[in-house]
Amino acid sequence: MSKRIDFQTNPSQYRHWKVEYDGPVARLIMDVDEKGGLFDGYELKLNSYDLSVDIELADIVQRMRFEHPEVGAVVMQSGKDRVFCAGANIRMLGGATHAHKVNFCKFTNETRNTYELAGEESGQSYICAVKGSCAGGGYELALACDYIMLTDDSSSAVALPEVPLLAVLPGTGGLTRVTDKRKVRRDLADVFCAMEEGVRGKKAKDWRLVDEVVPNSKFDEAVGERAREFAANNATGKPEKGIELTPLKRSFGEDSITYSAVEVALDRDNGVATITLSGPDTQLPASTDELVAQGADNWMLRLARELDDAILHLRLNELETGVLVFKSQGDREGVAAFEGFMLENADFWLAREILLYWKRVLKRVDVTSRSLVAMVENGSCFAGFLAELLFAADRSYMMEGEFEGDNRPVAALTLTQGNFGPYPMANDLTRLQTRFLGEPEQVETAKERVGEALEAAEAAELGLVTFAYDDIDWEDEIRIFLEERASFSPDALTGMEANLRFAGPETMETRIFGRLTAWQNWIFQRPNAVGESGALQRYGTGLRGEYDRKRV
Amino acid sequence: MSKRIDFQTNPSQYRHWKVEYDGPVARLIMDVDEKGGLFDGYELKLNSYDLSVDIELADIVQRMRFEHPEVGAVVMQSGKDRVFCAGANIRMLGGATHAHKVNFCKFTNETRNTYELAGEESGQSYICAVKGSCAGGGYELALACDYIMLTDDSSSAVALPEVPLLAVLPGTGGLTRVTDKRKVRRDLADVFCAMEEGVRGKKAKDWRLVDEVVPNSKFDEAVGERAREFAANNATGKPEKGIELTPLKRSFGEDSITYSAVEVALDRDNGVATITLSGPDTQLPASTDELVAQGADNWMLRLARELDDAILHLRLNELETGVLVFKSQGDREGVAAFEGFMLENADFWLAREILLYWKRVLKRVDVTSRSLVAMVENGSCFAGFLAELLFAADRSYMMEGEFEGDNRPVAALTLTQGNFGPYPMANDLTRLQTRFLGEPEQVETAKERVGEALEAAEAAELGLVTFAYDDIDWEDEIRIFLEERASFSPDALTGMEANLRFAGPETMETRIFGRLTAWQNWIFQRPNAVGESGALQRYGTGLRGEYDRKRV
Repeated sequence: MSKRIDFQTNPSQYRHWKVEYDGPVARLIMDVDEKGGLFDGYELKLNSYDLSVDIELADIVQRMRFEHPEVGAVVMQSGKDRVFCAGANIRMLGGATHAHKVNFCKFTNETRNTYELAGEESGQSYICAVKGSCAGGGYELALACDYIMLTDDSSSAVALPEVPLLAVLPGTGGLTRVTDKRKVRRDLADVFCAMEEGVRGKKAKDWRLVDEVVPNSKFDEAVGERAREFAANNATGKPEKGIELTPLKRSFGEDSITYSAVEVALDRDNGVATITLSGPDTQLPASTDELVAQGADNWMLRLARELDDAILHLRLNELETGVLVFKSQGDREGVAAFEGFMLENADFWLAREILLYWKRVLKRVDVTSRSLVAMVENGSCFAGFLAELLFAADRSYMMEGEFEGDNRPVAALTLTQGNFGPYPMANDLTRLQTRFLGEPEQVETAKERVGEALEAAEAAELGLVTFAYDDIDWEDEIRIFLEERASFSPDALTGMEANLRFAGPETMETRIFGRLTAWQNWIFQRPNAVGESGALQRYGTGLRGEYDRKRV
Repeated sequence: MSKRIDFQTNPSQYRHWKVEYDGPVARLIMDVDEKGGLFDGYELKLNSYDLSVDIELADIVQRMRFEHPEVGAVVMQSGKDRVFCAGANIRMLGGATHAHKVNFCKFTNETRNTYELAGEESGQSYICAVKGSCAGGGYELALACDYIMLTDDSSSAVALPEVPLLAVLPGTGGLTRVTDKRKVRRDLADVFCAMEEGVRGKKAKDWRLVDEVVPNSKFDEAVGERAREFAANNATGKPEKGIELTPLKRSFGEDSITYSAVEVALDRDNGVATITLSGPDTQLPASTDELVAQGADNWMLRLARELDDAILHLRLNELETGVLVFKSQGDREGVAAFEGFMLENADFWLAREILLYWKRVLKRVDVTSRSLVAMVENGSCFAGFLAELLFAADRSYMMEGEFEGDNRPVAALTLTQGNFGPYPMANDLTRLQTRFLGEPEQVETAKERVGEALEAAEAAELGLVTFAYDDIDWEDEIRIFLEERASFSPDALTGMEANLRFAGPETMETRIFGRLTAWQNWIFQRPNAVGESGALQRYGTGLRGEYDRKRV
């Protein structure tokens, strides 16, 4: 699995999904191309999926918000007879490395979260219309929708058969969505998750596994009706048309990736990727009309798309890069001005979508299993949403005072209103609230400094950076830190960071990333699953797994 | 490690701790006997500990509440020079099976929870007086105390060096208590957890790692003062003396354990342990004086101690027993009457302590990594706190109607006020609230039936049991279920049950058991930790671990 996985796609390239637009209702038809998998060695039978299928889905959901904001309801359905979706492809899972499996599950769950929130945030509600078998990851696709409809026939059922069939857990938040979103009674959830065949008809509704069960003969009609209802509820203030998400400008070098406003430099020997974000290179829009005219060329939107792509690329394609360093260069006040425009116009759909997209990108950073470091150097432009990267990072370093031979503007950072609301973490708190959980008054103190250029001593005093070093210490301290990080166990770091990053309240999202993922990581590499006699390896051979029976 | 681990001990047998009582202040002195470990192959140097040390600590904390209720403040300190506690013994961990490590961590954390709650619940506050190095599990001992005092000298520091030194996570809730209890800023927590040497003096206070730093010369005096203050705050309504926790009556057979009111039958071939609880066999006390006179012989207290011991025994000594079946036999109204007496007298210390103990025992059941099943048979006595076992179970079965040749009273269960408050789960909800998260009105409906004898049809209708079967189906259904459970992967079941059991809100406790434990389970068996070149195996050899650098 060494070919480069590309997260960029567009409708002309889709192999697995079709999208039909009909005014405020869109139909999203899953019709997986068996031969269209990302790697050799498996066929995507029965609408089973691999990462390639989910990359397309993520693209569709993203374009729905930017290119088709007129849509108010999205119906997710199958293009195959008798099967809705068989879930993640087992042969793909059986052949994938542990790291790929874990990253695959994380990305699929991020995609689920994205459309799960689209109703509330963007007035695009997802309805899942289940005809045929809907198992494992297939049911997880449904669970993330706002409304699940099930046809009432002998072959249509929802199921999470991972435990009995494969000796692993549902990999995309299934268990947590069953208990926390659908609030299925826990003993019924136990029975449900221990069944290979799943639950059909009225019982699926009684157990809260679906929202509506409809006789087969009336199913399509009922789905259409429900879609129109959801669309009507979401109709207020919808724009008539969107903007086009044009292809990213991106080129890969041996040790680098160059985008228009993002540069990634790879130091593979030391396992470090430096991601440098450039400040505004297009004009601040003067009106929302101008914003629409800029479209995908708008700096703040472009930067989000580029950073998002860079993070995903590093996650899946550079597995031994353990440290991501965030830097920035450019006009800090310009950064604040761009964000200010979006915040002022947050009731305009495109400004709102750009802010929401930054919320998602920052969350993607939060759950990235690499050590995250922000370095505030001279000439940098960490303000508002870019300063959030400092608070997303595991730690941050800031240049203090004069640096010999460095004539860039002295390092400073600027807080904006953006640091106090619009980009909450998965725990529903802002990054500053999470940071100052023990001293909430520090959030207020920081808020009083909005708009100021905070140099190192002040930023450190306010608790906004971890360390401030001058010209004498800077290089040594950074070098020592990077060497130290590289000397630690990657597993222990993943676990430590996952535990330290999300203090405070928990939400369904933190539970999925923090708890379910951890259990599943563990189970996914136990011999009972992936060993020679494990269930995942034996799946399809007619033999059951053989298990070490010790309970831990 | 096949010798039987015994969780019963008493002060005359302690090898690792001394307890000194001085009116309302007790001193708990950790002075670990190097030769006193549970197994061969390691010495408990530098106040490092294994399970034997924690079994004594758990016994002390328990006796403090029942035998020394006059105590209001407990000072935890070291009996050794220059070291407070070096944490869990690394050679013990290196040599232990994965299952033992996981169970060891779970028990140590349950013990920490017990004294962490003693202040709030029983007016016994724990003060940790740290002199010397306090590292890893040593700092976790401190973290669970109400107040941490650190002497200010060159050798006294607190540290969590697991990640840099051992490539594992702190195993007893350390990371979560750092972020959630002490609310240490996350970047400082990152720095702290990446340091081998830990943090000393004023910085430890500034970073919120300890509550008070005192010069060495004034340390003992300050600790004494603080202890008297805590004791004074807890003084109201303290009884003068407690009751004695006399030795349990217990005998081990080949396939059984017999207590006075608990019987464990082991079916090792099928991995099933049946735990049968007997109803009241002593008189209901007529007054609190009589309750004190009954002492440890009181049925409700005795049953708690016996069930607690049985669960711990099965966890550590019967690793391949994957299913625990809870049954009961006896006078259901008598059960409700005993609990009713305690609830009516909940402002009397001993009644309150017995209820609090049941809360702990039921929580111990909740976090036990075995499939839990309750079977409500004819003649059973599931009422109130015993009925909680039905709601703690992953699923429950109830006999319905006449059973041929069975002349025991027809199966029924009785709800009491005890099912609506006094035994919350780790998520701070009652088991019924958790059960009916999706239909909270069901809790109210159930409450209206308090005191009634609910037979199978009614109990199923109210959602209190999972399945009700009559004489024709009962045996087959139970057999099929047990066979099915035995055919599943133990790992997948552990993960599934851990995820389904704790729906709803999260607390520090659920985070530790649900999230941190999962990460740690995973890391504890990765080659980077336990492989030949892993850090845990290499510890003490002078060689560092060699790591697979892939991040997952």
